[in-house]
Formats: sequence, structure tokens, C-alpha cells
Amino acid sequence: MNYQQILEEIYLQSKSLPIIGNIATTIPELANVNPDKFGICLTTIDGKEFSVGDSNEKFSIQSVSKALSVTLAFSHLGEKIWERVGVEPSGNPFNSLVQLEYEKGIPRNPFINAGALVIADMLVSCLENPKEEFLHFIREISGCDTINYNLKVAQSEKDTGFRNAALTNFLKSFGNINNDVDKVLDFYFHQCSVEMTCKELADAFFFLANEGISKNGKQILTSSQAKRINALMQTCGFYDESGEFTYKVGLPGKSGIGGGIAAVLPKQFSVATWNPRLNEKGNSELGMYALEQLTTKTGMSIF
Amino acid sequence: MNYQQILEEIYLQSKSLPIIGNIATTIPELANVNPDKFGICLTTIDGKEFSVGDSNEKFSIQSVSKALSVTLAFSHLGEKIWERVGVEPSGNPFNSLVQLEYEKGIPRNPFINAGALVIADMLVSCLENPKEEFLHFIREISGCDTINYNLKVAQSEKDTGFRNAALTNFLKSFGNINNDVDKVLDFYFHQCSVEMTCKELADAFFFLANEGISKNGKQILTSSQAKRINALMQTCGFYDESGEFTYKVGLPGKSGIGGGIAAVLPKQFSVATWNPRLNEKGNSELGMYALEQLTTKTGMSIF
Amino acid sequence: MNYQQILEEIYLQSKSLPIIGNIATTIPELANVNPDKFGICLTTIDGKEFSVGDSNEKFSIQSVSKALSVTLAFSHLGEKIWERVGVEPSGNPFNSLVQLEYEKGIPRNPFINAGALVIADMLVSCLENPKEEFLHFIREISGCDTINYNLKVAQSEKDTGFRNAALTNFLKSFGNINNDVDKVLDFYFHQCSVEMTCKELADAFFFLANEGISKNGKQILTSSQAKRINALMQTCGFYDESGEFTYKVGLPGKSGIGGGIAAVLPKQFSVATWNPRLNEKGNSELGMYALEQLTTKTGMSIF
Amino acid sequence: MNYQQILEEIYLQSKSLPIIGNIATTIPELANVNPDKFGICLTTIDGKEFSVGDSNEKFSIQSVSKALSVTLAFSHLGEKIWERVGVEPSGNPFNSLVQLEYEKGIPRNPFINAGALVIADMLVSCLENPKEEFLHFIREISGCDTINYNLKVAQSEKDTGFRNAALTNFLKSFGNINNDVDKVLDFYFHQCSVEMTCKELADAFFFLANEGISKNGKQILTSSQAKRINALMQTCGFYDESGEFTYKVGLPGKSGIGGGIAAVLPKQFSVATWNPRLNEKGNSELGMYALEQLTTKTGMSIF
Repeated sequence: MNYQQILEEIYLQSKSLPIIGNIATTIPELANVNPDKFGICLTTIDGKEFSVGDSNEKFSIQSVSKALSVTLAFSHLGEKIWERVGVEPSGNPFNSLVQLEYEKGIPRNPFINAGALVIADMLVSCLENPKEEFLHFIREISGCDTINYNLKVAQSEKDTGFRNAALTNFLKSFGNINNDVDKVLDFYFHQCSVEMTCKELADAFFFLANEGISKNGKQILTSSQAKRINALMQTCGFYDESGEFTYKVGLPGKSGIGGGIAAVLPKQFSVATWNPRLNEKGNSELGMYALEQLTTKTGMSIF
Repeated sequence: MNYQQILEEIYLQSKSLPIIGNIATTIPELANVNPDKFGICLTTIDGKEFSVGDSNEKFSIQSVSKALSVTLAFSHLGEKIWERVGVEPSGNPFNSLVQLEYEKGIPRNPFINAGALVIADMLVSCLENPKEEFLHFIREISGCDTINYNLKVAQSEKDTGFRNAALTNFLKSFGNINNDVDKVLDFYFHQCSVEMTCKELADAFFFLANEGISKNGKQILTSSQAKRINALMQTCGFYDESGEFTYKVGLPGKSGIGGGIAAVLPKQFSVATWNPRLNEKGNSELGMYALEQLTTKTGMSIF
Repeated sequence: MNYQQILEEIYLQSKSLPIIGNIATTIPELANVNPDKFGICLTTIDGKEFSVGDSNEKFSIQSVSKALSVTLAFSHLGEKIWERVGVEPSGNPFNSLVQLEYEKGIPRNPFINAGALVIADMLVSCLENPKEEFLHFIREISGCDTINYNLKVAQSEKDTGFRNAALTNFLKSFGNINNDVDKVLDFYFHQCSVEMTCKELADAFFFLANEGISKNGKQILTSSQAKRINALMQTCGFYDESGEFTYKVGLPGKSGIGGGIAAVLPKQFSVATWNPRLNEKGNSELGMYALEQLTTKTGMSIF
Repeated sequence: MNYQQILEEIYLQSKSLPIIGNIATTIPELANVNPDKFGICLTTIDGKEFSVGDSNEKFSIQSVSKALSVTLAFSHLGEKIWERVGVEPSGNPFNSLVQLEYEKGIPRNPFINAGALVIADMLVSCLENPKEEFLHFIREISGCDTINYNLKVAQSEKDTGFRNAALTNFLKSFGNINNDVDKVLDFYFHQCSVEMTCKELADAFFFLANEGISKNGKQILTSSQAKRINALMQTCGFYDESGEFTYKVGLPGKSGIGGGIAAVLPKQFSVATWNPRLNEKGNSELGMYALEQLTTKTGMSIF
């Protein structure tokens, strides 16, 4: 498979597409990004790397981080994390409180905000220095020591994140947050503020394509656990557009409102895309297009 | 009408009723009350007072205070308060977030928690010393200088009020809270912690039976405004049991989880009851029974 | 009180108001009405009658009939009708299925469509010739033998009433409809198709202002039952605008999408208005305005 | 891979499991089945067949038929079917009307009842003899001419299917049903009443494992279309347990309340299981267990 040629074709095609969507405005600090940045990086299971566009520029990974935080919690706590968060698609927007009320404080899955906040609470409980250790974990799986939090973005989210504060307090009212609300939010806002390049993101998700083993050979999750994280990304990774992404692209993946998407084809490759423009559902329209083209042109998908 | 005899009959009847409901447990500090306390006090428009049972014991008025805080906001700000809160029954439990999400942060009415928090935000904005002035207002309309906040109860609500913190943050995410979340909650928890006797409560609600004029002759609201607060209490005063209360009792009223109820028959009387046992909807079952008997025995109701 | 002069003032004022709302289009047969028709008729408890405008023209009473069908069921079956339908405001549009699903097929009140269909089912069960007897009942309480169903309107509703068919089937799936779906719908569509004038409607609602006794002296409901129907109209008579109507007008009443409203001030008068233009909530904007002016100008309301 | 041995291990294990769930009671005619029947049949892409237990007994395929009806509609009408039905998981029970109301009559996906009824309406429109042609289609893809409708079951569903009648009328009120309600329901109840064995079902689903080509070599769907049906089954095939099934089993599949499940591993095999006991979500607990064991023991899944 000539991945480089395919990526270049996709990149070229993307230039002639109508421009769809806008930069996220909910977090003021994110609004300064050039909306036309576009990069793709693909890493095959045998370690080759292919990229086009702005694949070496850092961006805010935002909710893409939820796939990594649930991985870290899963590796520490195992199946018991599912006592406090479900594995079902929510059928609702990412920050909805409605379902949570009907379901007594157990979030549908770890990729909606409520679920990610419960996972954050677990990490705050089981890690000694949660922020340091989470950063260390990301650096390790991506093999890159320069990855860092963007403290301005974290602060910006804190200043405006009333919906997340509402969710955390709501969860705590149901007994599903053990730590102080402020402590959980502080971890969560830092987690979302991590900045990475497409290349680093593709490398970080390599273990999910490789039966749990990272690019530098470390067993992050068991093979079975890695499959389960992939299954979760397949049904829940794109909020209430998860079905659409599965239908069109057919790869497990996770999006973020910074415009990034990370996805994997098990036993074949991991891939990351980045364009800051979001569609109505909060996902990168161009990234979804690129990945749809990737599976169409290669004829490869999980289905 | 021999009100004293009627109250005594009701009091006697109530002794032979099956015991229904339990003390509210959501606020730990309230759990120490004797669940069998029961008092009624009725003040006629011409100033006579009738009472039975524990009508001179202080209790936590809790949500009964919402009728007084909306009155204070209404008197300061007039009809424009309805730009930020509605006048419709919610059809949902008092602390529900669901409707708020569908309706973009405008609470259905000022008697569900979300609406009362928006009213609290208005008072924090328009009063110089909100807590002092609110207390002063209550003392004035009830003609009793010893009424006070119970600081332990206020603190207890603060320590456990995650649902209210969720609501306030949620409202702020929709732009319907102007002040700091903590400041609004502090006012709200104090407002709810006010302690009054049945007698003081009946006196405080006198102005709603008397075209806006308090027992000591002060014009609190215009006649038309007083009617409107009564209308609101009629449709929304008992959460999702408002219809039931209207159906059975036929008086505008407001309940609280401390077990108190205040109600009025315009141009006739104001009345307050207290028993700490709550039914499933969070209203005092015995108080509702007493008021139903009152309108049945007197043949007087608004309908 | 010079009612005639007040009605004429209101009528005159109404001419200079901006025109709001449109004729109901859901029932094709109703779309042919002149949207500018406007009439009011008021009958005092001592039998005097005052009217302005098109108060002697027939119109389709539609949902105003729900107050009469629940009265007929209440007089036959008593309090047990509340085992199958509630007395709480719904907080939702008149034809919503959502609440019904959460609440297992017990409609919130008899004035939303679901509730009126359950009442229709009760009448189909307990009357020998339901359509004949219901018509007879309306003729009797209004003292007018020419009142009739409009069969074209009934047929028109049948041809397009898929939402009502959905509701009835849904209720039956919960076991809350005993008769054949088609039979219940047939009765319901006839009930709604009744045509009356403002004068006839004011006369028909007279018993609700007069402790259950009709204009021609017949005891339709007990005094207590009449109060309870009034209570229901107060909290639930205007769908999700019931709070607004109570707040502004302060009279128990019932609206219909034919543009009619009937309301009462207990012990004083019954009143009916008609203008075919509906606001967004499905209520006659001009009728609501007229009744608001009536209570403002007379200074009389239940509060 | 020794599939026969694996199936026998699973069959043996299943005998020592605690008995979970009960037979569906919503359709009276289905209640007569022996709840302990259990069969599995697996067909590999190269045509080999492996089976255990009651794999040659007919059962009511019920909602498993939805994967076949959407296939038939997709092959006739292509992508335009998605204008009337979505591809997102619903996050709600199979027969919910709630979401439909909020989303104006466009069902979330073709596997909830509302969506399957819209697909049925499409087939009633585009097929000349809908029932005959659908049956012919099933016989063709499964290579079995004895497959038939069970008319007693179809009648039984008709007699008790008020929820489905509600859904169809509700959809029609939104303009998303073109044919007569009764005609659509008649087709739908027949479609669900089809009886097949595990072997026939595994054969019928073969084309979804084989890039759209049936066991007897006919191109049913294009390769890309077959992937898309698989994607849909992955995210939506098990109602509000779709996430759980994806998480545990990792195969696209479809369940029915007759206790059947059909699933595929693309390019490897199709498989069908049958046990009539359903869990709370309406899926065969034992079938899900068997398929989880199958992917665990073979180490094969799409992830």
C-alpha cells in the first residue's frame, strides 16, 4: 500500500473542498489558531511513518485525551472502572446533563464529558501526582519528552468551564465523584490542554493498533484491553456523530474540539489528523473527510 | 366563621391519621428535628389570630422563603424579572436540570431551585448587603425582630449542596447568573436557613391576602403584584404536586422541606402549618391534609 | 359593575392591537374561518348577559369541550377517574408523547390530548350512546337545542389525526384504553367538532361559576366537584401557557384551537371569547388579552 | 482454527451457567417456546459449516429481520434511504417514542422499531408484492426454499402491537410514512414473523462477511454497502446494549426478541445463535455469552 501517495492525494483533494465549520469558541484561548492548518500523520504497525501538511505543529488535543486518560485508569484499575461509568453510546451531545439525571449519575461512557470527569476523579484518587504522572504517561507512549500542558488554555477552560463545573457537582450529588470538585476539574482542564502534533498523536495511539504494545515496545494494555478501548472509541468516540463516523469511516477513533482526530486500524496503522474547523457536532469535518478517503482509497476498514 | 374551633378539630383529627413520610435527610442539620411536631396558625385579614399545636416553635422555612425572595426582587425590579425566569409550572421535580437544558437556561418559574437561584442572583446584584437586607425584609413583614438565619443549617447546605452548585454553574454556563457562583449559593443557602414559627410565617404572608399591604400597614407590593405572586404560588408552589394541592386545597401556597407551608385566601386570611414529615414529592403531607380540611370545613377556597 | 361598558371598551381597544397569530392549520376543515371574527359574551351569576362582537356566531369549540367531557365523566364516575389520569400541569405541549412514556401511560391531566382520550374512553364505556348523550349533555347545560357536531370537521380530524391515533394506541399499549382505538377516536373527534356561539359557551360554563348548578337550575356537579374542575382548569387549562394565563388573567378557563376560550369567576360570572388567531402555544391571543383586560378593569380575579 | 471444537466447548460451558432471563411475553404466540433451546451455527467464508445444539430448529427471527429489510431497501434505493432514517445509536429502548418527538419524526437508525417501520414503508412503496418479494429475498440469500412467515405470530403481533401502531401513526404525523398505516404494519408484522434455523440465519448473513456476495455467489450489496450495514449493526444492532455487545464481543450483529442473534466477522465467518431467554434489554444473554466466548477463544474480532 502506498500510504504516502494516498495521503498526498487526500491532501490535494481537500484543498478544493468547500470550507465547512468554524473554530471552537467555547474556550477563548483556542480561538487564536489559524483555521486553515491541516495535517495528517500515519504510522504503520511495522513502524513506518507517512505525513502531509502541518503534521509537525502542536495543537490542543482536548477530548482526544479522553482515550488516553481512560487507558491509564483501565491499566491501573481494570474492569472495575465500569462500575462508575458505562460503555454505551449516549445519543446526546457531549456535555448533556439530561441523561445523567435519568440514570442517577452513572455517565453513559468515558468519552462524554461526564464520563471523562469520573475517569479524572479515578486518576486523582489512584495517582500520587496526577498531573505529573498523566503527562509522563503521554510522553512515554508517544516517545516525545517535549509534550506539555498549555497552562493558558487550562486556565482559560477553568475561567469559562461552568458547564463542566455543573457536571462535576451534579456527579458529586449522586456520589460518583470522590475528590474535591475543584481538584477534579483542575486535573481535567490540564488533561485537555495537552498540546501534541499529528505525528506525536499517531505514535501515542500506536499501542491501540498493536495489541496494547506501544511503539517503543512497552505493554500499555493487554491485547484484550486494547480491543475494548477500540470498541469504545468505535461506538462512542464522536459524541452523537459516532454512528456517522463508523458508517463512513469504519475505524475506531477519538476527536477533540481542538480539531484533532486520532484513529487506528488494528494490526495495520494508527493515524492522526488536524484541522481546527468543527462541524455542528463538534468534530473536525476535514479530518473525518480525510479518514473516509483513507479507508475508501485503501479499501481497508474494520468492516 | 369559628376558626379556632375548626383548627382544633383539624388538630384532633390529625392525631388519628396514619403517619406518612419522613424528615428530609438531604440536609444533615435538619435531621435532628422531632418529626411529630405539628402546628397551625391562621391570621384573618382583620388581624385576629388563631393557632393550635406547636405554632410558636421555630423551624427551618427552607423553600417557603422562595415566595419572599421573589417578592423582594419583584418589588425592586418589577416585571423585568420575568426576562430571566418563567411563570409556568415545570412538571418536574424541584431540582431537575433536564428542563433547563432543553430551555437554554431560563428556569420555568421562581419556585423550582433553578429559578430561585436566578432570583438570588438578582438580589445579590440589586441589594447592597443582600443577606442583611433580606433578613430585615422578613423581620419587617412578619413584625418580628428575632427572626434569624441558622448558620449551622446554611453551612450544612453548603457542605452537601452539590446539586444546587451544579444548577448554579449550569445557569451561569447559559449566561443567566451574573455574580460569582459561590456568592449566589451563599445567599441562597442563608435564605433557606431562616427559622420562623407558624405565627411569624402567617404574619409574613399576610400582605399576599391583603392586596399587598403587610399586617403593620406597609405596602409591600401593589395589589396587582400581590395577585400575581398568588397566581404563581397556585400553579407552581408545590413542585410537581402543585396540581394536586390546587385540586384538593384550592389556595395559593408555598411549601418547604423543613415541613412548613404558608398559604393565603385572598381578602380572608393567611395561614401557616408545620410538620416535618415529607411525602415523596417533598411536601408536608400533614400540612396539606390540614389545609384541605380547612377549605372543606369552611367551604372557602379561591374556586 | 357595568359589564357592558367594560366589554365594549375591550372590544374597541382590541381593534387597535397589532394582529398576532394565525388560524390553526392542523385541521384542514377549520382553515376556512374568517380570522378576524371576534366576540365576547359574559353571563353573571344572577342571569344577566352582556356581549359584544360576533358573540352569536358558531365556531368549533375543539379542546374547550375537554372541560365538558371531564365534567360528564366526573359526574358519572366520581373520584375514581383520577386512577387513570392525573391532575398535574404537564409542562409540555398538548400533544406530547414524551411524558406519557416516562409515566407509563397515565396522562398528567384531562386537558392534554392524552388525558382527554382517556376520558373519552371512560365515556365510551359508561354511556350507552356516547355521542348522542354527550351532545344531549351540552345542549342541556347551555339550554340550546340546536347545538350540533360538525361532521365535516370530525371527518377532517379523522383523516389527519395521526398524532391522536398515535396517542391512543400508545395509551392502549400501557393498558389505559379499554375500548377499540377507532371507537375512542371517533367519539373524541366528534366531541371536538361541536359548534357553539360565545353566548352558548358562557351559558354552558355557568354551572362552574355557580357551585355546580346550571343556568336552568340543574345540579350538574356537587359544589365541591365544581371547585375541583375549576382548580384543574386553573393549573392545566392552557397547556404549557397555563401559568402565563393564571399569572395574567387569574381565572380558571379552557381554550381550544378553534380560537374559543371559556372562563369563570366563581360566584360572579362565566365568560366566553372567540377569535380564531392562535399564538405559538395554540391559544387565542386576543381572547387572552380580552380576559386580562376584564380582570384588570373590574379588579376582580380569584387572587 | 478448530471451530467445531470451540463451539462444543462453548456449548458445554453454557450448560453450567446460571439461567438468566425469560422468554418474551409481549407477543403471546411466542410464549410457547421451550426456553432452554440453544443452538449455534457458524459458516466460514470458504463455505464450511459448524454447529452445535438446536441449530436446525426454526424460531421466530423477529428483529434480526431488520438487518435484512434494510439490506433490501439499500439495494433498491441506495444512500437516499438515509434521508428518512439516521445511522446513529439511539441510546434509548427499542420502542421509545421520546427521541422521535424531539427529532421530528426521523428515527435514529433502522434497527429501532421506528426506523424499521420507515424501512418497511419504503419497501411497501418500491416492491410490487412486498411480502412475497421479501420472503423470496430471504429464501434466496439463505438458499432455503422452505423459509416462511408464521401467520399466527404475525396475527398475534397485530392483535397486541399497539406500541408499533402508535409509532407508525406518530411517524405519519411527521410525514415520514407514505403508505396506509395498516399496510405498513401488516408488512412489518409479517417480516418479524419469519421463522429460520441458526443454520439458515448464518447462511443468510454470509454476504455481510463476504463483501456483499451471498453463499450462492450472488452480489446482494456492493462491498462498500456491505461494510456500511456492518457498521450500522456494530453501533446500533443491540438497542441500548449495543455498546456492551461491541465492548464484549466486537462483532457486528443483530438480535431479535425470539432469542436469535446473527453476527459476522468480515472476511472470516457468519454466525447465528439461538436461546429464547432474554435479558432486561431484550437481548439473548446466552447468545451474547456464546459470541463473547467465540471471540475470546479464537482471539478474532474486528478490533
